[in-house]
Amino acid sequence: MMAIRAGVYGASGYAGGELVALLNKHPAARLVFATSGSQLGKAVPESDLQFIAHEDARPQNVEAVFLALPHGASAGIARAALEEGAKVIDLSADFRMNSEAAWREWYGTAHQQPDLLPVPYGLPEINRAQLHGTALVAVPGCYPTTTLLGLYPLLLAKALAPGLPIVVDAKSGASGAGRTPTSMTHLPELYANLVPYKTGRSHRHVGEIEQELHKLDDDIGPVLFTPHLLPIDRGLLASITVTLAPEFNAAESQALYEETFDTEPMVRVLPAGDQATIAHVARRDGCVISLVPVLDRWLQITSVTDNLRKGAASQAVQNFNLMFGLTETAGLTPES
Amino acid sequence: MMAIRAGVYGASGYAGGELVALLNKHPAARLVFATSGSQLGKAVPESDLQFIAHEDARPQNVEAVFLALPHGASAGIARAALEEGAKVIDLSADFRMNSEAAWREWYGTAHQQPDLLPVPYGLPEINRAQLHGTALVAVPGCYPTTTLLGLYPLLLAKALAPGLPIVVDAKSGASGAGRTPTSMTHLPELYANLVPYKTGRSHRHVGEIEQELHKLDDDIGPVLFTPHLLPIDRGLLASITVTLAPEFNAAESQALYEETFDTEPMVRVLPAGDQATIAHVARRDGCVISLVPVLDRWLQITSVTDNLRKGAASQAVQNFNLMFGLTETAGLTPES
Amino acid sequence: MMAIRAGVYGASGYAGGELVALLNKHPAARLVFATSGSQLGKAVPESDLQFIAHEDARPQNVEAVFLALPHGASAGIARAALEEGAKVIDLSADFRMNSEAAWREWYGTAHQQPDLLPVPYGLPEINRAQLHGTALVAVPGCYPTTTLLGLYPLLLAKALAPGLPIVVDAKSGASGAGRTPTSMTHLPELYANLVPYKTGRSHRHVGEIEQELHKLDDDIGPVLFTPHLLPIDRGLLASITVTLAPEFNAAESQALYEETFDTEPMVRVLPAGDQATIAHVARRDGCVISLVPVLDRWLQITSVTDNLRKGAASQAVQNFNLMFGLTETAGLTPES
Amino acid sequence: MMAIRAGVYGASGYAGGELVALLNKHPAARLVFATSGSQLGKAVPESDLQFIAHEDARPQNVEAVFLALPHGASAGIARAALEEGAKVIDLSADFRMNSEAAWREWYGTAHQQPDLLPVPYGLPEINRAQLHGTALVAVPGCYPTTTLLGLYPLLLAKALAPGLPIVVDAKSGASGAGRTPTSMTHLPELYANLVPYKTGRSHRHVGEIEQELHKLDDDIGPVLFTPHLLPIDRGLLASITVTLAPEFNAAESQALYEETFDTEPMVRVLPAGDQATIAHVARRDGCVISLVPVLDRWLQITSVTDNLRKGAASQAVQNFNLMFGLTETAGLTPES
Repeated sequence: MMAIRAGVYGASGYAGGELVALLNKHPAARLVFATSGSQLGKAVPESDLQFIAHEDARPQNVEAVFLALPHGASAGIARAALEEGAKVIDLSADFRMNSEAAWREWYGTAHQQPDLLPVPYGLPEINRAQLHGTALVAVPGCYPTTTLLGLYPLLLAKALAPGLPIVVDAKSGASGAGRTPTSMTHLPELYANLVPYKTGRSHRHVGEIEQELHKLDDDIGPVLFTPHLLPIDRGLLASITVTLAPEFNAAESQALYEETFDTEPMVRVLPAGDQATIAHVARRDGCVISLVPVLDRWLQITSVTDNLRKGAASQAVQNFNLMFGLTETAGLTPES
Repeated sequence: MMAIRAGVYGASGYAGGELVALLNKHPAARLVFATSGSQLGKAVPESDLQFIAHEDARPQNVEAVFLALPHGASAGIARAALEEGAKVIDLSADFRMNSEAAWREWYGTAHQQPDLLPVPYGLPEINRAQLHGTALVAVPGCYPTTTLLGLYPLLLAKALAPGLPIVVDAKSGASGAGRTPTSMTHLPELYANLVPYKTGRSHRHVGEIEQELHKLDDDIGPVLFTPHLLPIDRGLLASITVTLAPEFNAAESQALYEETFDTEPMVRVLPAGDQATIAHVARRDGCVISLVPVLDRWLQITSVTDNLRKGAASQAVQNFNLMFGLTETAGLTPES
Repeated sequence: MMAIRAGVYGASGYAGGELVALLNKHPAARLVFATSGSQLGKAVPESDLQFIAHEDARPQNVEAVFLALPHGASAGIARAALEEGAKVIDLSADFRMNSEAAWREWYGTAHQQPDLLPVPYGLPEINRAQLHGTALVAVPGCYPTTTLLGLYPLLLAKALAPGLPIVVDAKSGASGAGRTPTSMTHLPELYANLVPYKTGRSHRHVGEIEQELHKLDDDIGPVLFTPHLLPIDRGLLASITVTLAPEFNAAESQALYEETFDTEPMVRVLPAGDQATIAHVARRDGCVISLVPVLDRWLQITSVTDNLRKGAASQAVQNFNLMFGLTETAGLTPES
Repeated sequence: MMAIRAGVYGASGYAGGELVALLNKHPAARLVFATSGSQLGKAVPESDLQFIAHEDARPQNVEAVFLALPHGASAGIARAALEEGAKVIDLSADFRMNSEAAWREWYGTAHQQPDLLPVPYGLPEINRAQLHGTALVAVPGCYPTTTLLGLYPLLLAKALAPGLPIVVDAKSGASGAGRTPTSMTHLPELYANLVPYKTGRSHRHVGEIEQELHKLDDDIGPVLFTPHLLPIDRGLLASITVTLAPEFNAAESQALYEETFDTEPMVRVLPAGDQATIAHVARRDGCVISLVPVLDRWLQITSVTDNLRKGAASQAVQNFNLMFGLTETAGLTPES
């Protein structure tokens, strides 16, 4: 089999670096170029390539383009690559909102390529049908991936109490904030600390989470989201607390989740009584979920991912596999 | 002024050690003995004393006895000390539940000194009137202190929606688990990890939290409590999410909290827009709170303490001060 | 090709766990059993096996036996396995000393299988000739591996000043202390700390280091060894300072090291000016070395490994490959 | 007693912040102004002051000026303050070298106030006589303080072998690198890592260390210095290995050190067999030292300080006390 030629934009960031590592060991992909704004001319790790400038990349030479760029920097490159005939896997936020209005609401600017919207949302466990063979995919953020997988079975089963809030208390390792040094991620500031940030509904990922939830159940209440920065390098744990619909008993959840994810290779539901932790997923490609029913009416869900893997690069590869008709887990280590 | 003579049982544990350090610098206390099961004969840090066995301590020689012992080990020593005329500040759980039935429900055993119940619950900000001059006090645990202070103004104002759950997502440093090495606190296991434990309503502190909440407002819903072990040494952060009563708007919360805690020296409410973090309270004696109103009807509260200080030793000293008619903050550093 | 059947004793410890993971992905090995004293009956991670008791293992069913047991527990099992015809890769200290006298000097007890001594010392970069096809190998400890590789080119070139001390300041992650919780590795004790231990020449690895150094150059001075416990989970960094022989200038070192390790797949010498750190080797299979010449006569060497990989499990696999005539790096990721 | 009025330049950096905290609790000092380049107008923690610009400070209003500024920024301000009659405690490097030539050698620029050189080197345990009542003092850096105290008794006793190297392997918490975020101190880069830097003799503190050593013994060999950045926030541990003069046996060291530091309040020599760690000094004002004699001729010394305290702010206060004739430990917690 001929390997699919791929290029990565933004390959020296944390997500881009993970992506390069995954593509290097992917059985059906070959990395052809890797761009970087800051590492020009340096060797790409575990590769014979050197980082090149974004503008020196030639998307016409590849079948697949991965965009691991800041939001706002992706949309134009995506269009150009599509026009050259490449398929595009965008890890930025640029195509995650389904309409220009929604983009404007959450990002506060005009969208650069509104005619491309809506774009399939690249969460295969929920949205697989739209991803087979598609030319452009918007890979979800780390918080949405972890949260949406943690809630999906309840939404499918219409098991959430209408109108009541979904409380998502999420904690992320500092690599989620990217490679650029800031005061917030300066080790003496974050060490031995725990820092809630963009609380309430101010984190932009809330828009993406609610957009996808509403596609499944339009009666749900608001997402109350509290992200925290953990004093560790990677991993993401979401503690989700929901009120269940009267006709659904919390004790039924375990079976519901196990059944829903039974055939999903990248999601593992722990046996009742086991508790998901970040160690379950660090440097792994999937999502792990555990459940605690509370007093019949409530459910506590713990959903964990590696923010740079299932929350970014591994999910991008999973999408790539679907877009090119490969085995969905090619180049990845299944969770189950 | 004559210093009040004090003894500490369990002085080589983490809370006991903090207590010894606080008493050593207290202007009106003098440490007379310090017991330890494991450090017999060794020097008590920053003191001329040596650790003695519990049974060699002479409560009759002191006016105040602090008990920093595991639950079950305190009650008998407390009674004996009371009979010798000493006042007793118990940092264990032994006297926190108000009835033998409640004790049995949460701890699964018969209470050893049921006739001493109920005992004043030593959270001065809520319960100060009962603490002045009393002879025995049950110092709250670290999770209840942080949670109850975070909720108190809303309860006072009857601002919580009746029957709806109070979601408490709490994260504690590993010193909260005590000095005994375990697999859970073994550095290679906890490093770079985050570990939810005793989720749902299985942590015994839930009993104590609900008992005290119900004294203030009997219409509240259940506490849904998710404690996590952080990969750091100390500090406790509780993210609390509540639904407000219809007649109360979330925007009113900031003023309510500021007013409620205005004269409290050991509690600081951050200005609107500031976010409490563990760094605000590490190695400090008080509690810091910040608020985020969400869509009028919900409130996200962040309440932080040092689990060994306001969550244990500093609060014990605050109680001691009240019991002996001293300035409430003697030996402590006020937060405001 | 038929896979070589292998069994692992002590498979639930940290080194044993890494070994299981490496064997699971090894192209020419198949894990047949895994023993554990503490995890009996539980599932072996990423495998269909369950942990069995040491005494229930059947070495006669395998071609290779890996022993990841505490020292003293290996020697007898090794002999039994040899007698059943299996080759034995021992990760414990039991066969590292070349004579019973040396064993007694450093371990203070009689050796249990003295007639098996001396056993080839499994550091392929120094000792490869002895390892091809051999039936029993003593895999070096993590400190000796890192130190000996850091010094090897100088010894080969007789470049060390005779009689002058070799100063080894080594720092290890806490997994090096094993999986059993202790006060020293209790997170609240080690967090934010750095702990020298077994300083001077009291660490048993000094015996093994000097034994191997003297085989290469009998004129060297003593090893002054200061191990430290780092507040991290894994990785080992040795800072080695040596005085060079008068006829050798420090500026020649870079070329000497590059030449010596030129064909070694598991050792990488960094370009002059680059500095080795633990991040270079964490979760990797090899050793990375960097050099700083100082004032012509002295050399500072930094040698880093992952203590559980090149310092234990990966090196065991490298030996296994040599013993069975496989490609030396089968199942491993080469450093260069 | 009238409090001595003091001003701090650079009060929002890590050392400056510690200094403000120490002065706030100092019994004989009163903070009158605090300058900052980045926190203009914000409240100075635990104070009624606001940060002002450097140029708005009025040294004529204070008796003492502390300079916690980057090197190069101090010298001019120091002269101006001296001319206004204030005494100056400079925590920067600007006055640490005794001659302009030495400054130029290590810092590569012309000195801005060469006529003020030499300035007393503010290490009271070695240099107390010069500090009483003086008007300008150069407070040593964190590495020199820890190293010089670790070596001082041997130098006094002429116990070092002439010409042989002094190996200093030092490890510092990340606050030593200052408050400005950099890639090196970005949490995802430093977490779980250990990073040697400025090895050999390239760290500027080598100049200051050797200058002071040579005043005590001109026959010593070179300092071979390997600083490392630890993945923790604060604390500094220097592992020092030396060869002793033939007439001095390593076994005599313990008594020598105990005697030398017997009356020093800010230095504690641990009993033989105990090992100094960073936990001994974190957030404390002094230096702790432990010794391991090796084979008669060598000595391993562990010297630890908090880099922001005895390595910066506490030492500045100790100097301030001497300059103003106060009790040397006023405002500090003695180690012994």
